[in-house]
Amino acid sequence: MHGARVRVELDPPYEVRIGPDVRHEVASATSGRSLLVVDQNVVERAEPLLVHVAQAALVVVGPGESAKEFSELEWLLSLMAQSGLDRGSTVVALGGGATLDLAGLAAALYMRGIASVQCPTTLLAMVDASVGGKTAVNLPEGKNLVGAFHQPRAVFADTRYLATLDASEFACGLGEVVKTAVIAGAEAFERLEQTAGALLARDEPSLVECIADCVRTKARVVVSDERESGPRKVLNLGHTFAHAIEHVAGYGTVPHGVAVGVGVALALHASRELGLLRDATLPERVERLLATLGLPRSLAELRAKHAVLLDPGALIVAMRSDKKTRDGSPRFVLVEELGTVRWDLALERELLARLLG
Amino acid sequence: MHGARVRVELDPPYEVRIGPDVRHEVASATSGRSLLVVDQNVVERAEPLLVHVAQAALVVVGPGESAKEFSELEWLLSLMAQSGLDRGSTVVALGGGATLDLAGLAAALYMRGIASVQCPTTLLAMVDASVGGKTAVNLPEGKNLVGAFHQPRAVFADTRYLATLDASEFACGLGEVVKTAVIAGAEAFERLEQTAGALLARDEPSLVECIADCVRTKARVVVSDERESGPRKVLNLGHTFAHAIEHVAGYGTVPHGVAVGVGVALALHASRELGLLRDATLPERVERLLATLGLPRSLAELRAKHAVLLDPGALIVAMRSDKKTRDGSPRFVLVEELGTVRWDLALERELLARLLG
Repeated sequence: MHGARVRVELDPPYEVRIGPDVRHEVASATSGRSLLVVDQNVVERAEPLLVHVAQAALVVVGPGESAKEFSELEWLLSLMAQSGLDRGSTVVALGGGATLDLAGLAAALYMRGIASVQCPTTLLAMVDASVGGKTAVNLPEGKNLVGAFHQPRAVFADTRYLATLDASEFACGLGEVVKTAVIAGAEAFERLEQTAGALLARDEPSLVECIADCVRTKARVVVSDERESGPRKVLNLGHTFAHAIEHVAGYGTVPHGVAVGVGVALALHASRELGLLRDATLPERVERLLATLGLPRSLAELRAKHAVLLDPGALIVAMRSDKKTRDGSPRFVLVEELGTVRWDLALERELLARLLG
Repeated sequence: MHGARVRVELDPPYEVRIGPDVRHEVASATSGRSLLVVDQNVVERAEPLLVHVAQAALVVVGPGESAKEFSELEWLLSLMAQSGLDRGSTVVALGGGATLDLAGLAAALYMRGIASVQCPTTLLAMVDASVGGKTAVNLPEGKNLVGAFHQPRAVFADTRYLATLDASEFACGLGEVVKTAVIAGAEAFERLEQTAGALLARDEPSLVECIADCVRTKARVVVSDERESGPRKVLNLGHTFAHAIEHVAGYGTVPHGVAVGVGVALALHASRELGLLRDATLPERVERLLATLGLPRSLAELRAKHAVLLDPGALIVAMRSDKKTRDGSPRFVLVEELGTVRWDLALERELLARLLG
């Protein structure tokens, strides 16, 4: 079975390897004394797929979003010091996005930056967290409020792990896949509509192709704007909504990718309401794709499925403390057409209240 | 009375303004909602010299090294979120090196980086912490183990604050001044020998000139190597010794600059023992300068003055967990002659034990 390689042309450049069993190549990308930071979910459910790096210390974190508490960062950094890591050492992260975010930030901060190798094990992390160098932990005041840009030395997306995910975990990665396809353009979006069935069945060649598509799109955007001063913000499509949903529901209640899927649908509705959207049928087309992929299409479906209230007023308050805020007014990424996306747009409170009602 | 300006040619470039009353220019360098992070020592002893920024929230930290506990970082970051800081905001740090390090790191991490303005109030911070973008906090396992490179938008070194320092605080900045002069070369070193008396008397024009000299030297080194991959390491002259001294004595017991002064003397002795030093009289010349400036010249003097044991074995163990370690062996910056300094050198344990005895 074949894999794919995508080169990310940052300085220094690095490669994302995608495919079955690429985890066996991880050790070749490490140097010095290594620390393997492993997601508790991987230990519990994918133990035969553990990565082996000679003489590396191993630490288990998480599971899930609990790995991103600020106290975990302190604990991990102390452990790195106790393990004798120095400037030539490597932190290898194996797990979902939260593990990658935590370990990547710890690598960014330890001695002001040591090498990081990222091994995403969930679909969400493969298409999202593994490219771009964004790392972060949460504060009680908001998600991802504390972080750094720290590009990994290499990324290994071993598709074997995807078979170990339960249906809901797998589906939630598809939310980011939909978002990325809207950003990529009409061709990628149509390809996704056509392969949606094969993806849901976890057909491995389709998965490799889909992940490589997403990574390519994300790499292209990130290279144009490493520090997110402008163009990179397109990747936040759906995220102002999604972060507010996750925050108000309580982190961990609604999976990120699921929130992003609904956020993308909301962004499209907002785009149509503002007269920005050229193809007025796109919101419903995106909703159909979300449904095919087993994802909630709307806040109403989300509220019912996850038994959460998600009060519109509370969502608006949460948006004000989002990173994408300027002078207290939340900013949104909106859509003109597939492949043409605008950022830093404000929405009137009235329209917002209607969308979130 | 005149001041000085030194431009640091990084990308983006920024300016260090040095002189009496330059604090009045701080507000012009801020944008958005600002947070003023003030050293408790400044509030207590230099209240009339507080910086004013319109509508800025003010938070007091410290005093001194206690500001660099990891828990302070978490607290400050939460407070930034509660104060509604966004990506366009500015963190203004006013205080000694610890305040600048903490506030600078918080600015580096908050929303993955917002603007930082640094206002050093001690001689040590003016000549050292204010240029180069190094920020950090401590772990129980070691000093400055957690940090980031984050260049400030501007630096204001108001020499009025220097009159508020007590003799020991003032003298300890002179340790870094001596280090910087050794790195700068014979001319700067001789100038320092000649003005040592005027500096001790806190003659303001001499101070402005001395600080500008140090900032120029540091800026030159930093610009050649922003991320400390090589040449910048010369600035660590004396620091492998100094960090071990501070660590073993217990942070805060021996002031950093005092430890650096002794560290520079030790590095010169080590350089001579290794046959690296071209002018064999330099260790004693540096010791004379340290003495003229009121600083301990040796570990023996330091032990007596600060009533600390500083066991040689404990110092060696501490060096092994220093950031300047590679594969468990501490690395040193050593001197060939004034202005010619080498880095990443190892010292044999036997020689080390003799030097620290």
